[in-house]
Amino acid sequence: MSGATKYVNLDRPFEMALGGALPEVTLAYETWGELSPDRDNAILLFTGLSPSAHAASSLEDPSRGWWEFMIGPGRALDTTRYFIICINNLGSCFGSTGPASTNPETGRPYRLDFPELSVEDIVRSQRLALHKLGIERLHAVVGASLGGMSALAFAVQYPDDVDELMVISAATRATPFAIAIRSLQRDCIKSDPCWHGGFYPEGQQPQEGMRLARKLGLMSYRSPEEWLERFGRERVDWLDEPGSQPFDIEFQVESYLEANARKFVQVCDANCYMYLSRAMDLFDLGDHAEDGDPTTALRKIRATRALVLGVETDFLFPIWQQKEVADGLKHAGLSTHYMPLSSIQGHDAFLVDKARFIPVIAEFFSSTSG
Amino acid sequence: MSGATKYVNLDRPFEMALGGALPEVTLAYETWGELSPDRDNAILLFTGLSPSAHAASSLEDPSRGWWEFMIGPGRALDTTRYFIICINNLGSCFGSTGPASTNPETGRPYRLDFPELSVEDIVRSQRLALHKLGIERLHAVVGASLGGMSALAFAVQYPDDVDELMVISAATRATPFAIAIRSLQRDCIKSDPCWHGGFYPEGQQPQEGMRLARKLGLMSYRSPEEWLERFGRERVDWLDEPGSQPFDIEFQVESYLEANARKFVQVCDANCYMYLSRAMDLFDLGDHAEDGDPTTALRKIRATRALVLGVETDFLFPIWQQKEVADGLKHAGLSTHYMPLSSIQGHDAFLVDKARFIPVIAEFFSSTSG
Repeated sequence: MSGATKYVNLDRPFEMALGGALPEVTLAYETWGELSPDRDNAILLFTGLSPSAHAASSLEDPSRGWWEFMIGPGRALDTTRYFIICINNLGSCFGSTGPASTNPETGRPYRLDFPELSVEDIVRSQRLALHKLGIERLHAVVGASLGGMSALAFAVQYPDDVDELMVISAATRATPFAIAIRSLQRDCIKSDPCWHGGFYPEGQQPQEGMRLARKLGLMSYRSPEEWLERFGRERVDWLDEPGSQPFDIEFQVESYLEANARKFVQVCDANCYMYLSRAMDLFDLGDHAEDGDPTTALRKIRATRALVLGVETDFLFPIWQQKEVADGLKHAGLSTHYMPLSSIQGHDAFLVDKARFIPVIAEFFSSTSG
Repeated sequence: MSGATKYVNLDRPFEMALGGALPEVTLAYETWGELSPDRDNAILLFTGLSPSAHAASSLEDPSRGWWEFMIGPGRALDTTRYFIICINNLGSCFGSTGPASTNPETGRPYRLDFPELSVEDIVRSQRLALHKLGIERLHAVVGASLGGMSALAFAVQYPDDVDELMVISAATRATPFAIAIRSLQRDCIKSDPCWHGGFYPEGQQPQEGMRLARKLGLMSYRSPEEWLERFGRERVDWLDEPGSQPFDIEFQVESYLEANARKFVQVCDANCYMYLSRAMDLFDLGDHAEDGDPTTALRKIRATRALVLGVETDFLFPIWQQKEVADGLKHAGLSTHYMPLSSIQGHDAFLVDKARFIPVIAEFFSSTSG
């Protein structure tokens, strides 16, 4: 982990929402800024499926974080005003307890003995970690993608704990198309003989399956429009070199996918990816309403203000889903600002489109009542 | 093959556009209707990537064809007026010569010894087959998807051979997103250990790779909108039965993909799929213009009328690509009817959305000068 990573151990055991329990849970986290004496300036930043808690650099770890441009002194998430905390998800593999962690009952990695994971487990475990750190109330919860689902779940389940809510490129539940994309990614991993029914030996990941899964992931995170502009039909420049095989990479877009996928395979555990991916499919905010309707669940929220952002080229969490969240929050009585952005980078635009994302997020937090 | 399948052998050898030659080429085809005494009522129907020549039933083969509702007496492709011919693509595995055929020089299947395939080879081989059948001139060429690319290539390369042109859900060249989708499908097949570097033994297909590839294919052929309406978040009804494994199928959309993919693996050869898939990536109508611009190439067409259809929910061949084709044909002087359809079935709508496709195609051919 990074030099800035700190750890918190939860009380044991940790009961999982869908059954089963973890005898021990450790969560890895990083923080930026200072907690105020009144402990009222904390912002909890939920991550997407694959990032670690290293959202931004710090003195302890100067390496670039996954939301570097958003977090810091004078930045949109202003560390001179707010205490930002980002916790690696339960089920992940960047310091927090997950399927790749050692099961204390066997001395071996959990693998598929890890109980089924839900967004609710992620959210509850992070709240317990905050309590351990002496934080009972949050100025805001913020999240994109899976992080946005987590932020919604937090605000619905713990309505008295949070004042403001920021939901980016997320939804109250996944579409069947998004489920199909993630299901096929898991299928790619399961089909790799190295997966060994989930119980692969240490250091022997199903790399081929992960490589394929990551490529499909990437395709769902960006947009056809972006790739048309970025790659067009450009060929790779080593095309006619000797040693090339039939069906080798020929187009730049193929080369980009391959390079990114090979990097990813080195850092992420296959089962962790599968558990978190499945949790996204299973999540349904409607489960928190008696009538099963996500809009009814949103009415439980007691936060006062919300910012809902989405991107028009996102087909994993299409823009109508963010509109639905925003409408629901308005009906629930929150002062809600909804902004569809015209970024061409699709679902992952929040990670790259500084020009569109920074001003609207900065504006939200600078006009805050907190 | 079907009882209606006929075969034609081309003169040998058949030189391939991208290098190499085939010592023998056989093409499988089916026909509907009667060729007029003047031999001026033939319509050549190009297929997409995976279908056989069995586009419709007939006395010889009463089984349902892939465009059954479009072809027959009184139908949009009216067999009382037209002689319809559909030829299984070169490179395919439904009776025509392809990578799964026996290489007469070795007595074994070609596999990857099959030379690189292009849309131009498909088109030229079908034209030679027509000549063998005594058909020198076509009333129309018709095609969707890869078939639409083929129809465009035919009309550009053999401008004096065709009067009318119908292009459905196609383009002058693939987008990088479409290339990425097909590249990943091939990657799934290549990653299957059973692929054996392309030289798998008879009857031992890389089934797992094909299954994954087909799922991704299906996802690109339909649309998120359709699946939302059709599957929503419905679960399969065998969910809580004993014997279920972690990460088993849980949602209806997953079950649909699995069932379809398992069927496909039984009928299609993996290498044939890969060759045809790559041909779609490589195709660029701009190769037929000195300036490399597809629009310039379109100006070579001498047909008089064109119908260009596309579907708004298609993200494999997005609607702006059909608009581009239609605009190019208008500039080339063809009387062009362009119609974007609001089908929710995406790229494959032409195979299922009878209500939208039949009237516009029927209208085109009933108002014909032919």
